[in-house]
Amino acid sequence: MMSKAGYKNLSNLGEFGFIDRIAARVSGGPGVITGIGDDAAVTALTPGMQLLTSTDMLLEDVHFRRSWHDPYHLGRKSLAVSISDIAAMGGIPRWSLLSLAIPSDLPLDFLDEFIRGYLAMATEQGVALIGGDTCSSRSGLVISVTIMGEQLPDLILRRSGAAPGDDIWVTDTLGDAALGLKLLEGGLDSAQPPNIAQKPDCPLIGVEGLLSRLLDPTPRTVAGQALAGSGLVSAMIDISDGVLADYGHIARLSAVGGSINLEALPLSPAFCSAAAGFDSFPYQLALSGGEDYELCFTSPPRYRENIADLLKKCGVDGTPVGIVTSSPEVKVFLADGAEFAHKTEGFTHFA
Amino acid sequence: MMSKAGYKNLSNLGEFGFIDRIAARVSGGPGVITGIGDDAAVTALTPGMQLLTSTDMLLEDVHFRRSWHDPYHLGRKSLAVSISDIAAMGGIPRWSLLSLAIPSDLPLDFLDEFIRGYLAMATEQGVALIGGDTCSSRSGLVISVTIMGEQLPDLILRRSGAAPGDDIWVTDTLGDAALGLKLLEGGLDSAQPPNIAQKPDCPLIGVEGLLSRLLDPTPRTVAGQALAGSGLVSAMIDISDGVLADYGHIARLSAVGGSINLEALPLSPAFCSAAAGFDSFPYQLALSGGEDYELCFTSPPRYRENIADLLKKCGVDGTPVGIVTSSPEVKVFLADGAEFAHKTEGFTHFA
Repeated sequence: MMSKAGYKNLSNLGEFGFIDRIAARVSGGPGVITGIGDDAAVTALTPGMQLLTSTDMLLEDVHFRRSWHDPYHLGRKSLAVSISDIAAMGGIPRWSLLSLAIPSDLPLDFLDEFIRGYLAMATEQGVALIGGDTCSSRSGLVISVTIMGEQLPDLILRRSGAAPGDDIWVTDTLGDAALGLKLLEGGLDSAQPPNIAQKPDCPLIGVEGLLSRLLDPTPRTVAGQALAGSGLVSAMIDISDGVLADYGHIARLSAVGGSINLEALPLSPAFCSAAAGFDSFPYQLALSGGEDYELCFTSPPRYRENIADLLKKCGVDGTPVGIVTSSPEVKVFLADGAEFAHKTEGFTHFA
Repeated sequence: MMSKAGYKNLSNLGEFGFIDRIAARVSGGPGVITGIGDDAAVTALTPGMQLLTSTDMLLEDVHFRRSWHDPYHLGRKSLAVSISDIAAMGGIPRWSLLSLAIPSDLPLDFLDEFIRGYLAMATEQGVALIGGDTCSSRSGLVISVTIMGEQLPDLILRRSGAAPGDDIWVTDTLGDAALGLKLLEGGLDSAQPPNIAQKPDCPLIGVEGLLSRLLDPTPRTVAGQALAGSGLVSAMIDISDGVLADYGHIARLSAVGGSINLEALPLSPAFCSAAAGFDSFPYQLALSGGEDYELCFTSPPRYRENIADLLKKCGVDGTPVGIVTSSPEVKVFLADGAEFAHKTEGFTHFA
């Protein structure tokens, strides 16, 4: 566990410096009995609730690049992607552990900004940083985040539970982060300037929105909890590898299939605008791009209006994009009824 | 969280192969509601207990070397060092999350053996593997383990709580792992053959025992819980950076000091035998070597016999090695009353 001794390898930092810097900026939170500084953190769950746990590891030049991700937003995102897993279960995020393997050349300013971003996201989401580990890295920065949340047993939503005939829903818009990554990979300048709005209702908008979706995702915690509490939802997952792959997890664990209407996938104006500069069919990124961190869930069609109302109250749009089927396959259809031959099943970082 | 999609970068493995291999070998455990396979794991604490959480990150060529650590024992140790943190709180280890960043050249056999070792330690310690994450690494293997345990609030032991006059205890022997590492660093053959037994009661014994302490540590879970349950102990920590540094954490958090009797530090016959081949004073490694994963705790002297009995029942020796003082310093004394000028305060991996 995070102990001062763990920091002795960090040549840029005093042995006690970095952890003191963090601990001084961390406050407690609901259920935190003992935070940073002992062998293990001690927390108390709300009576009657069960514990939700998830962990994510982010590696430099695999999941992020220092040239693209400024440290503040990297800190925010490191926590946000884990919180997204708690949101996908309908859980209340509570506590987190942060481990860092730090290259000796990493400036202290970078770390300070990273922690500032991490703690800003933590505060926004009601999460307390209660411990972690740190060591020196001989290659790039390694970030490992564990998130813990809680929820009443009856309100926890799983990937299983979808039933044939249910609507398949997604929140907000898809593909923005994946397109943002494409633009970064190509060098922002090399992206052809948008010349056609793919849809008439898509105004031309710059790429800032796409980059923001990639670099600073928002976990859908409020919507996730509201959906879980509504009793209207049969299964839920967060979309990190593209809706096709992630709905595929719901389908497999629910022993169902699905029919996704390609052109129903919600696209942002920024996406439509920027995607027009690319040759390939823009829906491919909305279908199979990564890092949307939106929710995909299933719900009987009779609740369609209730779901739309509920999401509106949570400040996020929702779109039915298909139907759960009894066949074991997940298929994608065009508006004319033809099946869409999709290229890949999910997103590969820096492939 | 551990999702099949996470494995797609592993060129040696099918996208679904590795996680299926793990999931097929994992069984549930107390309080496991939903294990591997959803966005987050779901577990239920024993009513009335609080949650204990700790995390450790292990990097290739920083914390371990593939040439020294065979994969089976590396798997065991990866979990054991985290469990040691739960033991140090007097907790009952329950659930773990395992994240791996895997170099593309790592043989599948290595991973299988690693998992076999991890799960063997998990079974021995009553821990369930409930989730994790995996991705490809562009440099070495990265292992991140989060351990969760539980305990009744009144039985949780912290680093704070030591009072002047208390005995300072340690379990088993110290310095074995650090000396094992020294032998490995020097190349086993280059270690001078033991020619003098430092203590008359130290029989000459090979280095296997030392290497085993380094490569396959045993978390003191049973002793930790017994000590916590006894009500006789005022503070506890596990010794990962040497007793001097780790008792220093107890001292600081308890606002006390300490006086450690150097020659009281318990040494194994194997340690005495092998240390005789080195020039430097052997107690230095027992004082400030790393990776003992023994317990250091404090207890009023009137309980000395009870503590000894209790530890004997747990199958581990205990030794009083000093006294908690009211002065803020931690000092080390020789048998003749002279202060021992120790070189470093703790252990640095591969320094």
